Amino acid sequence: MNPSNLSSVADLVIHPKWIVPVVPQGQVLTEHSVVVSDGRITRIEPTAEALRIQAAEHLHLPSQVLLPGLINAHGHGAMTLLRGIADDAPLLSWLQDHIWPLEAAFVSEAFVRDGTDLALLDLVMGGTTTFSDMYFFPDVTAQRADLAGLRAQLVFPVIDVATAWASDSEACLEKGLALRDEYRDHTLIQVGIGAHSTYSVPESTLQKIATLVHELDAPLQIHLHETQAEINMALEAHGERPISVLNRLGLLGPRTQCVHMTALSDDDIELLSSTNSHVIHCPRSNMKLASGISPVDRLLKAGVNVALGTDGAASNNRLNMLAELQMTALLAKLESLEATALPATRALELATMGGARALGLEKTIGSIEPGKAADLIALDLSQPHTQPLNNIISQIVYATSGSELTHSWVAGQPLVRDGQPVTLTPADISARVARWPEKFKAHQASIDQTGSDLS
Amino acid sequence: MNPSNLSSVADLVIHPKWIVPVVPQGQVLTEHSVVVSDGRITRIEPTAEALRIQAAEHLHLPSQVLLPGLINAHGHGAMTLLRGIADDAPLLSWLQDHIWPLEAAFVSEAFVRDGTDLALLDLVMGGTTTFSDMYFFPDVTAQRADLAGLRAQLVFPVIDVATAWASDSEACLEKGLALRDEYRDHTLIQVGIGAHSTYSVPESTLQKIATLVHELDAPLQIHLHETQAEINMALEAHGERPISVLNRLGLLGPRTQCVHMTALSDDDIELLSSTNSHVIHCPRSNMKLASGISPVDRLLKAGVNVALGTDGAASNNRLNMLAELQMTALLAKLESLEATALPATRALELATMGGARALGLEKTIGSIEPGKAADLIALDLSQPHTQPLNNIISQIVYATSGSELTHSWVAGQPLVRDGQPVTLTPADISARVARWPEKFKAHQASIDQTGSDLS
Repeated sequence: MNPSNLSSVADLVIHPKWIVPVVPQGQVLTEHSVVVSDGRITRIEPTAEALRIQAAEHLHLPSQVLLPGLINAHGHGAMTLLRGIADDAPLLSWLQDHIWPLEAAFVSEAFVRDGTDLALLDLVMGGTTTFSDMYFFPDVTAQRADLAGLRAQLVFPVIDVATAWASDSEACLEKGLALRDEYRDHTLIQVGIGAHSTYSVPESTLQKIATLVHELDAPLQIHLHETQAEINMALEAHGERPISVLNRLGLLGPRTQCVHMTALSDDDIELLSSTNSHVIHCPRSNMKLASGISPVDRLLKAGVNVALGTDGAASNNRLNMLAELQMTALLAKLESLEATALPATRALELATMGGARALGLEKTIGSIEPGKAADLIALDLSQPHTQPLNNIISQIVYATSGSELTHSWVAGQPLVRDGQPVTLTPADISARVARWPEKFKAHQASIDQTGSDLS
Repeated sequence: MNPSNLSSVADLVIHPKWIVPVVPQGQVLTEHSVVVSDGRITRIEPTAEALRIQAAEHLHLPSQVLLPGLINAHGHGAMTLLRGIADDAPLLSWLQDHIWPLEAAFVSEAFVRDGTDLALLDLVMGGTTTFSDMYFFPDVTAQRADLAGLRAQLVFPVIDVATAWASDSEACLEKGLALRDEYRDHTLIQVGIGAHSTYSVPESTLQKIATLVHELDAPLQIHLHETQAEINMALEAHGERPISVLNRLGLLGPRTQCVHMTALSDDDIELLSSTNSHVIHCPRSNMKLASGISPVDRLLKAGVNVALGTDGAASNNRLNMLAELQMTALLAKLESLEATALPATRALELATMGGARALGLEKTIGSIEPGKAADLIALDLSQPHTQPLNNIISQIVYATSGSELTHSWVAGQPLVRDGQPVTLTPADISARVARWPEKFKAHQASIDQTGSDLS
């Protein structure tokens, strides 16, 4: 027993059944507690001692494991409204015949507000505490994330298509940089650049982005090598693979987050590795859209940092990081035909420290260590499907259904308590969200009507 | 309104928000109700009329979709006790260094009782109403399934390895056939033959099984083409692919359920198709053990019936059929690199009618049709992760987490009510199950001790 604890004071002391701090790798602590003050983890110590700390709250979690909050490194939150609207369609038709026309007709501040709120609720209830988002009206997304209390990287979209938010890629940049300026001092929200892809942003704009990334030390996220078709298209158009375009423009580097990265050659992997660029793996989206597989095991062996993302709900259709890390582990084994590929502890790292590194937040989040922000989640492992407890980390990675969350905090502030959201109101969100499918159907019917009039 | 209803009497009338009967394919009914009498579905009719029926119970499910119960066509229930015990190990080491030694040390009536009860609870809470099981002490499994009220196909294991249950494959056959005789008249439980594989059962026993299958019209289930290595081994040993061995022995046919079926040639598919043999696809197990992929889309196009199975919890690690059908749809797209492969409606069919056909129960279960058994489940679609309701079947297949079940019935008898199991007691099962991990650890420690003594 440590007498100094008698006089110590904390905001919150959490006494879970287990702690999986992620760093050190594979560690499972029992009879230990986590002490939180001023939004930070101050100590991890034996429960017998931690119980003596004067604290505003002592929270006992007798059947829960405490983990660092999960980091969803790629998504388009507001697209939850389009969940299930055009499933089982080929990628090009999915985009051109369904998603883009609906977005052209409906994307607005109200669409982004309602869709983002649903996404935030879905993310939070699945254990995400930090998310990255790339969507129109990022100012609205920022406001909603701020209200909900999540940590966020908002990469404003840069795309050469006229939308309700901006007329072209130059206008995107202008509006986005103003938003970055507005959130410069925000403790939880950082604004970066979300170049859509090498095929949808003119090279002149990509060059400007390269300058900005270096001048501002801003994160850059880009869809890259989503499919073999994207690579083939680039090779035909200008004889270069998309990743080579980025490299030539000086756009690969430690602030660059390359999303998807399927169909990789050894040279591609060497480029990622030598430039310290990050890969954001979205396995469920890649499967659903039949995009391909990112060779995560090979990437990790080459020293490339890999983070995980759900992508948008229109192409997943879940926003659940437990489901995503489960799929990551399973898919890596299939891809390499080695059952030892990406063991559970490594998969869990990708969803935590991997995400933190990709977002440049590895000193702040991604593990339960003294000095880091108190971004924490608690999962209840007492349900039948996670029994028996032969191996805690295995159960988290392979046996969870995604509904085990009971508590969640960002910077020590509760987002979920006893399985109920604290900062978001499900009934209000459901009511607002429920209005959209009718609008989509009416719009589709009017198009069909116009079509038949013409025939 | 139908005046005849005024005088009609039923046991139960269910008024869900939606009905997805599976037959006809893709249908979603609203404002309809399902009438149940004597364990059977007697009618599906407009809610306005169904409300007038005299019934012991009218059950309103205002945010739920009613589906036929899911059919888990392959598993080893008692292996839930080994969940998470040797994850991320290569298949051969997984079997030889971990699973088989633990089974040799621990498999007993008590092991099968506790493990099966946990499996039954896990299965039921995930929407399974009919399961197939292949494990030692099938008499214990039969008793537990009977107590829990699930519908079951128990394929007693035939394997040429001495176990606590039987000394060799001939003893397996003898004990299993006695069990089949015992359950001959059971309404919910049928007993079939579970030949482990072509490499673990002598050809003389397989010949005997061929005779039995024909004489008794008994279902036969066998692990077949689980990996390319299994095929290579058979080719090297006797120049035949495992499926060819079965074909030569007359063991392919409409009662034969071939489990796994990866690495299929066109000839293999033609053999399955021409003999009307069934394939039981276990996608999550195949991924986790890095076994390969069964080409479901090609099989279906060739007219082969495909059912789904979770396999045992030691190699999945979930026993959740919603997770399995979600994986089936996602994996089929990846395997064929076509986003249109295995659309949601088809995936749902595999988990219901596909399973019913494989088990020879297509006249009894697999769809919500008058005359069929009232094996039904209700899923709540009001949670954030299944919003908004652009497409009901899409949400079931792609967006569920596996925790949406609120009600379940087998032959009209409730297994789950308002999210709580009726026939199984979680606290009792958890308490019994929690004792096993310590035993496994003590055993492993004693082996390690012996090992170090020798060194």
